[in-house]
Amino acid sequence: MDQKYRQGGFTLPGEAGYEKLTLELAKKWGADVIRDSDGTKLSPEIVEAGYSIYSTICIIRQHNAFAAEHPDSQQQSFLCSDPVVAQGDTLVIRPMDGYFDEQFELNDTPDALGYWQVYDRTTDTEVPRSQWTYADGRVTVTGCTPWHQYTVSFLCWRIWEEINMYNHTTNSWTTEHLRQLDPRHPAAWEYLQQWLENWCVENPATNVVRLTSLFYNFVWIFGDSMRNRSRFVDWASYDFTVSAAALKDFEAEYGYALTAEDFIHQGKLQVTHMPPTKAKRDYMAFIQKFVAEKAKVLVDIIHKHGKLAYVFYDDSWVGMEPYGPHFASIGFDGLIKCVFSGYECRLCANVDVPTHELRFHPYLFPTGLGGLPTFSEGGDPSRDALQYWQHVRRALMRQSVDRIGLGGYLSLTIPFPDFHDTMENMAIEFRRLKELHAHGGPVSAPIRVAVLHTWGSLRSWTLSGHFHETDMHNLIHINEALSGLPVDVRFLSFEDAENGALADVDVVINAGRAGDAWSGGASWQSEKLVAALTRFVHEGGTFIGVGEPSAVEGYQTFFRMAHVLGVDKDTGARVCHGKWRFDVTDAPFAIDTQGLGQDPYLHLTDGKAQVLHAANGVPQMTLNRFGKGWGVYMSQFRWSIESTRMLLEMLLHTQNVSAGTAYLSDRAEVETAYYPADKVLVVASSATEPVDCLVHTPDGDRAFHLEPMETKIIRD
Amino acid sequence: MDQKYRQGGFTLPGEAGYEKLTLELAKKWGADVIRDSDGTKLSPEIVEAGYSIYSTICIIRQHNAFAAEHPDSQQQSFLCSDPVVAQGDTLVIRPMDGYFDEQFELNDTPDALGYWQVYDRTTDTEVPRSQWTYADGRVTVTGCTPWHQYTVSFLCWRIWEEINMYNHTTNSWTTEHLRQLDPRHPAAWEYLQQWLENWCVENPATNVVRLTSLFYNFVWIFGDSMRNRSRFVDWASYDFTVSAAALKDFEAEYGYALTAEDFIHQGKLQVTHMPPTKAKRDYMAFIQKFVAEKAKVLVDIIHKHGKLAYVFYDDSWVGMEPYGPHFASIGFDGLIKCVFSGYECRLCANVDVPTHELRFHPYLFPTGLGGLPTFSEGGDPSRDALQYWQHVRRALMRQSVDRIGLGGYLSLTIPFPDFHDTMENMAIEFRRLKELHAHGGPVSAPIRVAVLHTWGSLRSWTLSGHFHETDMHNLIHINEALSGLPVDVRFLSFEDAENGALADVDVVINAGRAGDAWSGGASWQSEKLVAALTRFVHEGGTFIGVGEPSAVEGYQTFFRMAHVLGVDKDTGARVCHGKWRFDVTDAPFAIDTQGLGQDPYLHLTDGKAQVLHAANGVPQMTLNRFGKGWGVYMSQFRWSIESTRMLLEMLLHTQNVSAGTAYLSDRAEVETAYYPADKVLVVASSATEPVDCLVHTPDGDRAFHLEPMETKIIRD
Repeated sequence: MDQKYRQGGFTLPGEAGYEKLTLELAKKWGADVIRDSDGTKLSPEIVEAGYSIYSTICIIRQHNAFAAEHPDSQQQSFLCSDPVVAQGDTLVIRPMDGYFDEQFELNDTPDALGYWQVYDRTTDTEVPRSQWTYADGRVTVTGCTPWHQYTVSFLCWRIWEEINMYNHTTNSWTTEHLRQLDPRHPAAWEYLQQWLENWCVENPATNVVRLTSLFYNFVWIFGDSMRNRSRFVDWASYDFTVSAAALKDFEAEYGYALTAEDFIHQGKLQVTHMPPTKAKRDYMAFIQKFVAEKAKVLVDIIHKHGKLAYVFYDDSWVGMEPYGPHFASIGFDGLIKCVFSGYECRLCANVDVPTHELRFHPYLFPTGLGGLPTFSEGGDPSRDALQYWQHVRRALMRQSVDRIGLGGYLSLTIPFPDFHDTMENMAIEFRRLKELHAHGGPVSAPIRVAVLHTWGSLRSWTLSGHFHETDMHNLIHINEALSGLPVDVRFLSFEDAENGALADVDVVINAGRAGDAWSGGASWQSEKLVAALTRFVHEGGTFIGVGEPSAVEGYQTFFRMAHVLGVDKDTGARVCHGKWRFDVTDAPFAIDTQGLGQDPYLHLTDGKAQVLHAANGVPQMTLNRFGKGWGVYMSQFRWSIESTRMLLEMLLHTQNVSAGTAYLSDRAEVETAYYPADKVLVVASSATEPVDCLVHTPDGDRAFHLEPMETKIIRD
Repeated sequence: MDQKYRQGGFTLPGEAGYEKLTLELAKKWGADVIRDSDGTKLSPEIVEAGYSIYSTICIIRQHNAFAAEHPDSQQQSFLCSDPVVAQGDTLVIRPMDGYFDEQFELNDTPDALGYWQVYDRTTDTEVPRSQWTYADGRVTVTGCTPWHQYTVSFLCWRIWEEINMYNHTTNSWTTEHLRQLDPRHPAAWEYLQQWLENWCVENPATNVVRLTSLFYNFVWIFGDSMRNRSRFVDWASYDFTVSAAALKDFEAEYGYALTAEDFIHQGKLQVTHMPPTKAKRDYMAFIQKFVAEKAKVLVDIIHKHGKLAYVFYDDSWVGMEPYGPHFASIGFDGLIKCVFSGYECRLCANVDVPTHELRFHPYLFPTGLGGLPTFSEGGDPSRDALQYWQHVRRALMRQSVDRIGLGGYLSLTIPFPDFHDTMENMAIEFRRLKELHAHGGPVSAPIRVAVLHTWGSLRSWTLSGHFHETDMHNLIHINEALSGLPVDVRFLSFEDAENGALADVDVVINAGRAGDAWSGGASWQSEKLVAALTRFVHEGGTFIGVGEPSAVEGYQTFFRMAHVLGVDKDTGARVCHGKWRFDVTDAPFAIDTQGLGQDPYLHLTDGKAQVLHAANGVPQMTLNRFGKGWGVYMSQFRWSIESTRMLLEMLLHTQNVSAGTAYLSDRAEVETAYYPADKVLVVASSATEPVDCLVHTPDGDRAFHLEPMETKIIRD
């Protein structure tokens, strides 16, 4: 093994008290960087060992003394009380009932009260300010209509930084609750800049300041009942950025005022998975600009001290979207993304920033997600690591990053020497793939796939959070499958599609539930969109619809692309229409029926689509010729090795690309990439048993034998 | 056995050529009336045997000679072409493509052409008349937007009466296709009156003229493909009543004009299962008035000849709804309803007409529904008859009719003597129940149940057609269960509920799919409705929601009654909201989980509802205390003996009525009715095995043993 594959591009979490282990593993895994773990400080023995040093800062947290002196500098949110039924003319509502009082505290300052709203939710109209009063945590509403329901929307302080709150409540921490400052507060902002300046002076050994992350946490609202502790969580919502000051600034900048209802939205809040209102879009742009401006000031301070500024893209990243319009302007030197999945690698890899780093799972913690043991008795961290690697490897075969790393406590790995070996091997494979990419990257099939949804490139690859948090959405399964396929992938908004972007793609995928941001909701009212896609397919494109694609009420079909898909869904009006009889016929490519749905309301439009799978006599997967192109419908898509293979073969078939061009293997578990500059073929198995396979290439078939999870890197 | 139970209230189909059999079975079954079967004439031997004679007339059919001379007197319909995608500026559409040309013929007379419409279905806008021309069965559209879809809505003649068409195409008849006349055509109307006059003169032996039925058939549109022969069927739609003349009359009467689109509705047509537009409601009222006026003229002719006029409520009954505003004014002497189900008995029994008669199934035909043998080799008509009787008997225990009868060919029954005995026994049981009702009827539990939907009493008991045609709707299962329960049942519209009708009921049931006529769709936007029902439950009422009850978008909850039900459905906006954890707990009454659904999007609203059943961790049946009343939710309801029992126990429990008051048995298969005037308890088993049971009564429990399907009639 060339020594160059044994060292570099690896960030190791150092651990005070385990200096020897730290340096041993740094050597074994080829680390070039050592970082402090959350809450630990590196010892001089490590700091002076010649490695680069990352230090972690959560800029808005850990300033409890300042917060105590300036309670109005804390972050806020709008909340909405649970609805209460009026039985008479007058109603008393305690807005905080049902919320976790260690996270929230009513903000009844005059500025804040000016934004409170009482709503008659039965009529969905605001109750005039003159009809309600506030005192001592209670709102008294008069002039109620009996038997209507009322809510109070209110501003509150967020008195417990949410990641700290999570660690406390999940891991039974007992330390002081950490608060968080709002950089919009002038005194807080002055303080934070000075604090960072001081920090840089006091940490001369640090080469890279690793910001975790910036200012505003993803939205996470706790309830007071243990039966519904997590009342709301959305990794990409903006509710935690708000304050009276922000609203006033917004009004000054945009010329119109937002109200509580713009955030509360009938108690539903403004979830990322639904199409945004214009007010929400404006507010997001407003916050993004603010976050970028403030972040740039911090990055400049860091640069002034000769350090690099990397940002960890999880936790408090709201407003800092790496595919947003301002990200590049901040001047970060690196982006670090923790990854469970392939799509998260692609998300990281494609950002316009000098250095891309992945933080691998499992974290070096006793327990992992869902409370199962990892680095503790009963755990099998090597197995876990390989499971994530299966996803990450295939993404890295398509597009590389610059660095990988781990987080947590090295000492916990001592009882798991096989994990040490697994990680060593992964690091070597990562470096070999990285080199291949550096020489020009892999061959792709000549297929340009566009994922089409409301957010377009702003939400490239991710929906809102990790796979397991969004796995009720078909699209995350699609994105995960795409992350390792030998095709070009891009993310288009409906505006993009209407305005010429289809000229540069071969396949469009629309996957979502009717009315959500991924399907598109009202965007499908646009005849320009429908016509553009109709033409696109007629002239040879492929339109793949999943779930309730292109769905909107008010037209002859529920799926606006029903004429292309050959299938539609009845929402009630067609219950008396006859349904075309059909036979289920063999697909011209491998299909995986396991992940398809059982929607009882689907039917063929004109009887011409080929039905590839049916459930209870109802078509669930269809293939429809339309002009020179194809419409493909699947009632559901769940990620699996087999469904990934199905998607790839579907792309090849409908775009008439040969298996050899795509270096397709004859087994779903074996994926490949060919790197022409180095004349290297990578063949990777995800199987749990040894497999023999053939790989189709432009020069004929090649036979391979692979051990479980083996990656073969073969030079011609 | 008292002779009075052996004779009377029974209509027998006589059969020429089988005079002896006819008279034998007339005696065995206790017939007092003999009718001619479809297409047969009774022989003098039967006619002169002393029985009353029914003769069947289908007034608009069997006038082919007149139709040939006056082709413009035939009935019509609007149809809409299948959509066609424009690839350029010009498009040619053949409107009739895809329709059965033996049923339809383009009506391109100038009057009719004036009502044709070309639509851009991509924009859902009409194409100006100046942009299209018609010639030779083809519409040429110019100025198209490329890649938009276009349709032609057109009037056509219906050149084959649909029941005749069905019999031809199903039973391979080869006789002449019968046409049908529109009584709105002046010459046809003159002709029909004269024809009936002559008929009455020529048929002096006939006592009862049995009209099958009046003028306009339920809507049944055939396609030209055998893969989708029945393109549309709705037993209560009005599309087959239309003509240029009708539209002109409508305009004159209502002051505004209808267009093709009022019928075509984006190709969806105006199905009974969806809430009607205002135009449709007006048009229905317009047709109902016309049908009633014309029907009265015919009935008067029949009466003038000393005969009675009964109407068969199936086939061509559109506009003649027995619960419509004009039915009583027609002056019918009797209503005959063919029955598969209990709800059809209640539908018939409750109509304001002197005589109510049921036509039992199976018909005396070789094959039954779905093509299975009945009176032919492999058939078991006695078993079939008992299966229907299980449904009919329980309805008759609650409410009687005056007569029963059969249809078809007696000779077919010869190989099935057990059928002769079964029918004899049913007839006796019918007469005994009828007598009990005549003396005052059964005790009911003091529970007034209202089924709440868009149509209210107009669509009492039925939705649109028979059970097996509407069994995708939860409500027909509910109605069938209710048809034999010891409670008062009524049907309310949303307007009724808003305007005081709730004061007279104890339980409200709303069962449907979001947006359909049974759930209610936009009717739930009414805050008056929501407030009235909220109050109703709070003060002690029960609200039972099934499927997607009270569902409408635009409010804080999707189910407007979610606060009462304690459960709601997420349509996407609440995907990030935490869901209340719950334990499934025992219900305070028998529940049947077999028929419940598996809706993945349901969740508890405030965590307080008791979950009685869950599927995949999602609540599917809940019980929620609200004030002094209860909300009960079921994600689905399928009729079964067990689900019927569940519904009854649910009513008793939530209305605090004891088992004894309701004469509840301790077995779901055993239903009861107590007739206080005669002090008679009827105990009926639907079990296929002998059963022992206890019946709870106000005077204590009573034990019984019943043979399969036995009906015990016990006098105290």
